[in-house]
Amino acid sequence: MASVLSVEPTAISLQGAVCLVTGGLGFIGSNLVHRLIAEGATVRVVDALVADHGGDRRNLAVTQVEPLIAEIGDPAVGDLLRGADMVFNFAGQVSHTSSMTDPERDLHLNAVTHSRFLELLRRAAPKARVVHASTRQVYGRAIRLPVDETHPANPVDVNGVAKLAGEQLHMVYARAYDMAITSLRLTNVYGPRQRLSSDELGFLPVFIRLALTGGMIKLFGDGSQRRDCLHVDDVVDAALAVAMDPAGIGRVYNVGHDVDHSLAEIASMLIQLTDKNCTVSVTPWPEHHERIDIGSFQSDSGLIAAEIGWKASTDLRDGLRSTLAFYREYPWYLSST
Amino acid sequence: MASVLSVEPTAISLQGAVCLVTGGLGFIGSNLVHRLIAEGATVRVVDALVADHGGDRRNLAVTQVEPLIAEIGDPAVGDLLRGADMVFNFAGQVSHTSSMTDPERDLHLNAVTHSRFLELLRRAAPKARVVHASTRQVYGRAIRLPVDETHPANPVDVNGVAKLAGEQLHMVYARAYDMAITSLRLTNVYGPRQRLSSDELGFLPVFIRLALTGGMIKLFGDGSQRRDCLHVDDVVDAALAVAMDPAGIGRVYNVGHDVDHSLAEIASMLIQLTDKNCTVSVTPWPEHHERIDIGSFQSDSGLIAAEIGWKASTDLRDGLRSTLAFYREYPWYLSST
Repeated sequence: MASVLSVEPTAISLQGAVCLVTGGLGFIGSNLVHRLIAEGATVRVVDALVADHGGDRRNLAVTQVEPLIAEIGDPAVGDLLRGADMVFNFAGQVSHTSSMTDPERDLHLNAVTHSRFLELLRRAAPKARVVHASTRQVYGRAIRLPVDETHPANPVDVNGVAKLAGEQLHMVYARAYDMAITSLRLTNVYGPRQRLSSDELGFLPVFIRLALTGGMIKLFGDGSQRRDCLHVDDVVDAALAVAMDPAGIGRVYNVGHDVDHSLAEIASMLIQLTDKNCTVSVTPWPEHHERIDIGSFQSDSGLIAAEIGWKASTDLRDGLRSTLAFYREYPWYLSST
Repeated sequence: MASVLSVEPTAISLQGAVCLVTGGLGFIGSNLVHRLIAEGATVRVVDALVADHGGDRRNLAVTQVEPLIAEIGDPAVGDLLRGADMVFNFAGQVSHTSSMTDPERDLHLNAVTHSRFLELLRRAAPKARVVHASTRQVYGRAIRLPVDETHPANPVDVNGVAKLAGEQLHMVYARAYDMAITSLRLTNVYGPRQRLSSDELGFLPVFIRLALTGGMIKLFGDGSQRRDCLHVDDVVDAALAVAMDPAGIGRVYNVGHDVDHSLAEIASMLIQLTDKNCTVSVTPWPEHHERIDIGSFQSDSGLIAAEIGWKASTDLRDGLRSTLAFYREYPWYLSST
């Protein structure tokens, strides 16, 4: 993946920029931290290391970053915000099923703590450039494909409701207090540093774990549901491109991949890329899953392409191949709790 | 206003029905309670009597109802829910400006407590018919008029964000747990039993108070912003019509008035209807108000008319006249704290 700096040269540089990454010990956050360090930024991290989430200290073990272990609404985060040029608010709870078994926890982690964070932000760093990670889950079941930003937001689970509230709070602050905030609705993301051991963080980490360990990939229904999958490096590219371009201020962008695949195709691709005895089975939907499933989904990322010049560049097969290589090198991700 | 029972005869009767009204000591809730009692229902009430909100024990003083004073998420509400045939979830915080000065309180009262309430509801009364009060505030600034339910929901303040989350939680529960829930996006409501002493509960109670006390009605900007205003009796009609018709299950309906008026027209109508020396002035927008103002708004209530057969029937001038007569009879509403 080319550096965003070479794609869209701007006057803004990451060299020496003070950046705060929330959820910086998690999957996407830690990949962003590694990239920011490589680009010469000074990086601060806050992460609550919430049980069952993607955060793990080992994701930043090779760096000099000393993370603050706290919720993003903790008053101590105000100190990390002071002097920040850029803020990447990537903390959140991502499990759809957990959001239904403990709705209040999801509302707390995806909306209430973000409200506290925004209050800290507008006092401590009102001029910072802010990028917030939202999700395509806010749309719910697609009534038309591909889904652009004008598609109605009708979430099917508490996670989608709470993430939408978190996103809209960011937009309210952008307008009410003239803050430089952009929110990105991310599609299904895969790549290095994802916690693979959980069944609750999306289908991609489960498929990757089973492909590497030789288990059986269960497809609910007939496996024909389609998804666009995004390599985490593409997400990092998008976040940096947005942070360095004022065109996105006050905007919400889809961040997805132009090419979609059926879950059956993705499973079969993973089996081809591994030499383990992994198999695929088709199984009826468990009822509690089916009621919050969204069928096929395909993001339309035309708006961010037009306004910021970002477009996903990682082919799924290439991305999965390098991802599998990463996890062969760091097998503890397969069993990390 | 004709009884909904005579408008749309159904097999479902309110006679003997066990009904829970949340926010039942408040403006809309207490009007609903009075009507339910008149129709022969057995009424239970929960109200948190939150400071600065519309709840007041005197609103139900002439009834036999013994309200539970608690948040709607309190476990004791589970006892009130057991055996309920109909649930009218009308509790909430309505001040736009308060939502910006204390965002977390608004999220708590409009989203988190509703999440707790829905968990109690699905356990204690999973088959009850449920009507939730949402608000046109979820739309934010209208990008087209009139605003129907397909208009994007882009709230401009924390109140709109939190109310939308509360509404969407109700829809998630309707789908995920097969519950008979409808949510109503109410426009600006006026009528008896509204707390007139606050400047934070919308422009209508302020205008009505000033018209009755002879103060000066301040119009921000030039007073040309338009609103459709709904008499509380029409809201009660809509809630009962929806509760008695399964067609609305899982639906969100606008509940507004077909006729809109400018704020200047509404102020002048009130002055004509009173003999006090009330005047109107035009004043520039205070900045913190302007940033969360939505310009003109006109609801399109065509969907509920087509599917349920409800339509607002109270002309604004008639409604204001009877409302003023009510407050002349009960002047304590003008100074109640």
